[in-house]
Formats: sequence, C-alpha cells, structure tokens
Amino acid sequence: MAAKPAWATRTSVDPESACPIGPVVDIVFSRWTTPILWSLNEHGRQRFVELERRISTITPKVLTQRLRQLERDGLVVRTYHPEVPPRVEYEISELGRSLAPLFAHLAEWAAVNLEQVERARHDYDAQPGR
Amino acid sequence: MAAKPAWATRTSVDPESACPIGPVVDIVFSRWTTPILWSLNEHGRQRFVELERRISTITPKVLTQRLRQLERDGLVVRTYHPEVPPRVEYEISELGRSLAPLFAHLAEWAAVNLEQVERARHDYDAQPGR
Repeated sequence: MAAKPAWATRTSVDPESACPIGPVVDIVFSRWTTPILWSLNEHGRQRFVELERRISTITPKVLTQRLRQLERDGLVVRTYHPEVPPRVEYEISELGRSLAPLFAHLAEWAAVNLEQVERARHDYDAQPGR
Repeated sequence: MAAKPAWATRTSVDPESACPIGPVVDIVFSRWTTPILWSLNEHGRQRFVELERRISTITPKVLTQRLRQLERDGLVVRTYHPEVPPRVEYEISELGRSLAPLFAHLAEWAAVNLEQVERARHDYDAQPGR
C-alpha cells in the first residue's frame, strides 16, 4: 500500500476509502451548487428571481431544491420578511464564505492549467482513429 | 455591482459569468472523476480491473467513459503494452498530480467544517414542519 498522501494527512476522512473527499465534493461541487454559492458570494443577498436571472440556465424547480439543500447544509441563510407581499431573501452564511479560499485556489489552478487541458484535448482528438 | 472577489482575481475566467469556475468543476469534480484521480494518485499505476475493484460502486461502462475523458483532458496517461495477452495500464499525469494541493485544501476544509454541516442538517431537520 502507498504511503498516506499529503492531501489526506490533515483530515478526519478515511484515506482508505475509494475517495475520502467524496462527501465534500457532493456538498460543494454538485451540479448547480457552485454557481449559487458563487452568485451569493459575489452579488450578496438576493431574492429567488434575482438568482434565477443570474444563473440563467437553471430551472425554478432545481433552484428551489438546491437552495433548500444549501440551507440545510448551513451554507446559505434564508430570511423570510413577513410583509405584504411576503419577501424571501437568500444570502451566503459564514460557513459558505469559508469556501472562498478553496474557490480561489480552484480558480488559480484553472488560470494556470486550463490551457494545458485544452491542448491535451486537441492532441487527443488529432490522433488517427479518434 | 460588487467588487471583484478575491477568488477571481488570479484567473483568466470571466468573473461576470454565473460561475467562472464551472469549467474546472466539470473537469475535476464531475461524478466519478474525483475517485479515479484519487485512486491513481494514492495507489499508483493500475489496470482497469484494479480501478474497478477499488471504486467498487462504479460500472465498467462509466469507468471506461471517465478514463477516456480523463485521458483526453490530459489528467491520466494510458499505456498499452503489446504483450500476449495485451496489457493496459493507467496512471495519473503530471497535470493530474498538480491537483493534489487542491484536493488537500478540500480535505482540510472538510476536516474543519464537515461537522458543522452535519450540525446544520440536524438543526434543519429538527425544525417543526420539516
């Protein structure tokens, strides 16, 4: 068995499982979760219709589901204003904001390496028989 | 409009889009991609059947598709040994290995915050009417 990798040394997750970061990936990077967190962090507190407009390809049904999941996970805070008509706003929580350095790290990896991914794809597709 | 967030300052991706890190998320964190990269980084060069055994819940069809995608993205290297019978091995590329600090960062976030997510879920589910 290989030595415990550096990326597993500071976590309580089980490094022997097929993918110890799986649970975090599901929470933070499942489809539609990232754009919602990004938008709330970037543009601040928003109403449902504002989020819907910004993440233009999301359906209302999926946005509702994802916001509920993010609220349940403690990454988004939902505030109900009992006005007439009632108003509901969503904002990123402190826990959600703690993801910012991780997202920055990811954006940095993209800035450095995305071009190399593009080149690899180009080379792969140019091989005879592809 | 809010100021350009810290996590977008060092990337060439468009911070005005709904989610500038979307393309990277698709490459690195799409379902089944993370366990394959993790396993190859942790256990070194492997044959198809070894990967299949380690990531026990993956189907051969999906594993084939994901390995081809990762090879195309330049994150995995496939080596064909023309023996009798032929042997094919997969290993993580240098580009794939450059994801290690990012995975470590993610594992660290999990170690610090996953418990808080669990607590938030518990509290959410305990609310009357849920």
